[in-house]
Parts: sequence; structure tokens; C-alpha cells
Amino acid sequence: MELPEKLLKVVRQFSRLPGVGEKTALRQSLIMTKWNKEDLVHFAEAVKALAELNHCEKCGMFCDDKLCKICLDYGRSHSKTLCVVESVTDCLAIERSGNFKGKFHILFGVLNPLLGIGPDELKLDQFIDRVKNEEIEEVILAVNPSVEGDATCAYIKQMLPDSVRVDRIGFGIPMGGSLEFVDALTITKALENRRHL
Amino acid sequence: MELPEKLLKVVRQFSRLPGVGEKTALRQSLIMTKWNKEDLVHFAEAVKALAELNHCEKCGMFCDDKLCKICLDYGRSHSKTLCVVESVTDCLAIERSGNFKGKFHILFGVLNPLLGIGPDELKLDQFIDRVKNEEIEEVILAVNPSVEGDATCAYIKQMLPDSVRVDRIGFGIPMGGSLEFVDALTITKALENRRHL
Repeated sequence: MELPEKLLKVVRQFSRLPGVGEKTALRQSLIMTKWNKEDLVHFAEAVKALAELNHCEKCGMFCDDKLCKICLDYGRSHSKTLCVVESVTDCLAIERSGNFKGKFHILFGVLNPLLGIGPDELKLDQFIDRVKNEEIEEVILAVNPSVEGDATCAYIKQMLPDSVRVDRIGFGIPMGGSLEFVDALTITKALENRRHL
Repeated sequence: MELPEKLLKVVRQFSRLPGVGEKTALRQSLIMTKWNKEDLVHFAEAVKALAELNHCEKCGMFCDDKLCKICLDYGRSHSKTLCVVESVTDCLAIERSGNFKGKFHILFGVLNPLLGIGPDELKLDQFIDRVKNEEIEEVILAVNPSVEGDATCAYIKQMLPDSVRVDRIGFGIPMGGSLEFVDALTITKALENRRHL
């Protein structure tokens, strides 16, 4: 049978999410039909409020007000180390590792001439300003390995004064990984990145 | 780092759905941060509208107006066969099979004295009225096999006049199933339900 339009609308909306097929969307929608009105309104309001989610004026991370919790953290905001990432999710991944105590700068992309993404489309001017104003001594380029990522790193490196130390995160065999199953490019990188013991 | 409250609210709401853990909820929420305001509002409105989803006055199925599409279908609504199911999802499962052309009656549960669900909590009076008013000749009890389901079927059977033929859906080995891996109770049922060829 055809489902009523009200239910189908929710199914269609859920299907737009990653990893949600039509079957899952229907299951989720049917569960929601059992929720009371208040719960549905809470859900709807939370989703709507996402449109008002701010980006930190400094680093670009999500925040409730003007600055994010990292930039508001005295210890971290006075750090002289700045980690450059492509996206909010990459920033969150580094935060999850829990071992970086500096601050971030989110580029919101990488240079990609084919897609028309040049330096002006990324938050690069702001980045250069920050390095100057915040007297940054060390920049860690935590940009993903790809042709565009490499180009972006090279571009950033030549824009920074020599007094700033620029590193790129290490590439190699992932922890728990096995040489047997790792691709050839990763092994090449891992050999290049070998460390003297 | 701690995520902003606006994002966390959405993550919490998504985590309430079946099969959505915190990680999936975060992934979905992050994708939604890239949606424009209009899309977010559409999503929110669809969810909110679920509160106004109606149940068909006759059978209890979801519908946009007073009657569902099955009860509005002339051919089906004049059928003399009524299929009794526990829930909307069970009704949808039978509809998916595509081979039932009668109408439905949704009980919204089964008798369960331990949980305080007696005949008054189910739509049983309405069911008896329908059998009488719509001159039903055949009732198919598509209630799931369980102690409570069996009791509900026995209860319904004794409430109906003898002129109405009452069947229960067949239990046995599922299609594509293998005797080797099917539980003992199902095999017992399958043997009971054997058919003469």
C-alpha cells in the first residue's frame, strides 16, 4: 500500500542522511510515530537550530557563541603551535586523539583548481594574519594526503616566513596495521618517513 | 573538545533512533551542518508533522485524512476477508508481500495481563462491530506466535460467531530456510502444519 504523505516526507528526509537507506529511514520514521508530540517538537527544533550554529571567528570550529571552546581555553589559545586542518571533522578527529594541546585553523577545503577552489576560497588570508598576530612559532599541516592536499601544503609553506617551523603530520603504516595488507604508496611513504632509533 | 550545545542536541536526538549510536548520530549531525537553512526547516517540519499523523477510523492504519488508502479502495473495502494484525508494521509487512487483497484491522498490541493489557486496551470491540457491520465471512489472525499472541487468538475466536471462518496464518520453515538451522519449536510447528500433497 502507499504510505500517507506525512510519513513518506519523514522517510524521504531521513533517506538523505549518510548510511540511511529507504528501509532504515522507514524503520526510524515508524519508531517516531510512537513518540509524543513534545518529543517530535524537540527533535525538530534541534534540527532547525543547526542553521544558527556558529563558526568560531578565529579557527572556524563550530561554537555556540563567537569563539569556540578551544580558542576560549587560556592555556591553548596562548599556545604557539597552530594545527591546520581541512574540515571540522578532521579537527574533531585530532581532538579525539587527545594529544594535541595547541590551537587549530580550519581551511574548509584544499586548493583544487579543477573545482575552482583557489586561495581566496579557503581561509588562507585569515591564517596568515593569525600566524603574524598570534606570534605562531610552529605550524603543523594536518592536511590529508592527496595531490590537492600536497599542493595546499606547498602553497602554505612558501607563504609563511622562514622563522616559522612548518611540519606536516606523519604518513606511514597505521597502528595495528600489517605491512602485508598495506598499499604500496603507504609503504613507500613509511620508508621515506623512517625514524632513526 | 566539547562540541557546542546546538550540535550536541541534534546528536542526542538522533541517538534516540533505533540502530543509531553516538558515532552515527554525530556523523549524521555533521552532514546536516552543511545543509542550508531551508533544508533543515523542511526536515524539522516533516518530523513535527508526524504528531498530526492520523490513524484510519476503521482499521487503525496510518492515513492523511480519516480513512486509509486500503479502506478507501472500493475493491478491498468490500472484501469479506479481514486480517487482524498487532501493529502498523505488521500490516505493512503483509502489504509488502503483495498477495493479500482483503482489509485489515490493527489491534495495537496483544492481550498481556502481566502488563495490564486486557481486551479494553486493544481495539477489540471495534473489531467485533466491524465483523458484524461489514458482514465479514473470513478472519485471518496474523498475530505473531507468542504466548500472548496465542491467547489473543483464542480470545478472538470465542468472541466471533460460528458463521465466521477464523484462520491463523501458517507457522513453519521460512522460505530459503534450512531444517538444519531452524529451532526445534519451529520444526514442531512445521510438522503440525504439514499439508497433504
